[in-house]
Amino acid sequence: MNENLYHEITPEGFGIAIEKDKDLFSKKSPYQQTDVFHSRAFGNVLTLDGLMMVTERDEFFYHEMIVHIPMLTHKNPKNILVIGAGDGGTVRELLKHKEVEHIDMVEIDRVVIDAALEFFPSVSCGLKDKKVNVLVEDAVEFVKNKENLYDVVLIDSTDPIGPGVGLFNEDFYNNVKRALKPGGIVVPQTEGPFAQSENMRLTYKLLRKVFKNVAPYTGPMPTYPGGYWSWGFCSDDVEIPLDSSKIDEKRAQIIEKTCKIYNRALHSAVFAVPNFVKELTK
Amino acid sequence: MNENLYHEITPEGFGIAIEKDKDLFSKKSPYQQTDVFHSRAFGNVLTLDGLMMVTERDEFFYHEMIVHIPMLTHKNPKNILVIGAGDGGTVRELLKHKEVEHIDMVEIDRVVIDAALEFFPSVSCGLKDKKVNVLVEDAVEFVKNKENLYDVVLIDSTDPIGPGVGLFNEDFYNNVKRALKPGGIVVPQTEGPFAQSENMRLTYKLLRKVFKNVAPYTGPMPTYPGGYWSWGFCSDDVEIPLDSSKIDEKRAQIIEKTCKIYNRALHSAVFAVPNFVKELTK
Repeated sequence: MNENLYHEITPEGFGIAIEKDKDLFSKKSPYQQTDVFHSRAFGNVLTLDGLMMVTERDEFFYHEMIVHIPMLTHKNPKNILVIGAGDGGTVRELLKHKEVEHIDMVEIDRVVIDAALEFFPSVSCGLKDKKVNVLVEDAVEFVKNKENLYDVVLIDSTDPIGPGVGLFNEDFYNNVKRALKPGGIVVPQTEGPFAQSENMRLTYKLLRKVFKNVAPYTGPMPTYPGGYWSWGFCSDDVEIPLDSSKIDEKRAQIIEKTCKIYNRALHSAVFAVPNFVKELTK
Repeated sequence: MNENLYHEITPEGFGIAIEKDKDLFSKKSPYQQTDVFHSRAFGNVLTLDGLMMVTERDEFFYHEMIVHIPMLTHKNPKNILVIGAGDGGTVRELLKHKEVEHIDMVEIDRVVIDAALEFFPSVSCGLKDKKVNVLVEDAVEFVKNKENLYDVVLIDSTDPIGPGVGLFNEDFYNNVKRALKPGGIVVPQTEGPFAQSENMRLTYKLLRKVFKNVAPYTGPMPTYPGGYWSWGFCSDDVEIPLDSSKIDEKRAQIIEKTCKIYNRALHSAVFAVPNFVKELTK
């Protein structure tokens, strides 16, 4: 057996293995342990407390999905809040939308941002944009006194263990909802339907308590547990975008041209989830 | 590191790791090495030449997709040919369709069938059905003299290395096409879009030479490389089923009720593939 394999094995006893070429970075913050290594398969890889967070080669699967589905559903998304997402991939995709005037990005751990700026230039490239306000603080506190401010809120959190645990909580979601403008949309990552089905079930139970319209959408994510990931479309006054033909064609075309995944047909197709995902999230 | 991990690492340097509880079976045939082990995460697992083929816990992702998309697109699928698929999962799903009168299943390696009958009863359960004719022979030879016989042909092959190599070949596909009745549909598995993109590109180049209508459809498959898999819808006279509302509602409802994945909304949604998959398969 290759001694230089990185493993992320779930409590259920399976996971990903990646041949590691070289360790590049390792630093413990008050919040978590951040490591970066290089691999032939995925380029640079960042882990938090040993769990896979981002790789140069497959990050597009995650970032295109969390961003373009809500952004192209919203009619005119100007003010955006991003929670977590210290690597910058979500911000990079947001900046493709010319409607965006301002992005607040609230990441608790500066070490993640610094590691992304140094080792993931293709991911973090938007973090220094003049439209982006990077706040290094606890998002749970940040959203407590915000009201009627944002068109779209994206919650790009870690799993509901460690520093991410406060982001899977009814008070937190009520605060996020209060921070939305009318016509606002919230999308959190909602875990792996196959590998983390119990996390996912609890997350949707919570989201359905807070928002009127809630629907999971799913897609591949090779380096996350089970290779299959989900995000939750949440809004009180925007309908689930089940009809791609209602998406603004001109705006969608501009985004499509820059994407490895996103296209207009896929915009509604991602909401056609397997029966077991419907059951988990009802 | 747990010494009892099964690994399948791709030539690119990444892959799956599964904690193995117990080895159950190991046998070398003239074609390949078959192994079965038990794991907490996936129940029983079968590998061929060390490569993941089927697990009890996630096989439904693959088998529902290869079967129900072509079967519910076809108006009246009576006679079916299955190539490979010795584990029986494809046959089990086919037998859910009451239109089916006869299934020829051509598997080259009896060892796979025997291992499935012994260690995968929930997968192989249809192999002894009276509608099923199991032929232990080389499918490349089998299809050479067949004409106007089958409504649907499913090619549930291994990768284009080892015993499966003859199944990725223009002569073979021309023979399969001749074996189809008018209105016939062929669906081969077409590899992993992310982890085996070059295999996939070559497969679609081949399929487009032989068939008039060809389209990839994709879905999650946790234990296969990259966790993301594809199948190819091929026909000369049946259109790609891009409109779910055209699928026979009554037939689809019967199937849906038995499935963990398949539903009518998903039937067309699976053809809305990411931009990079369109590019690979054009």
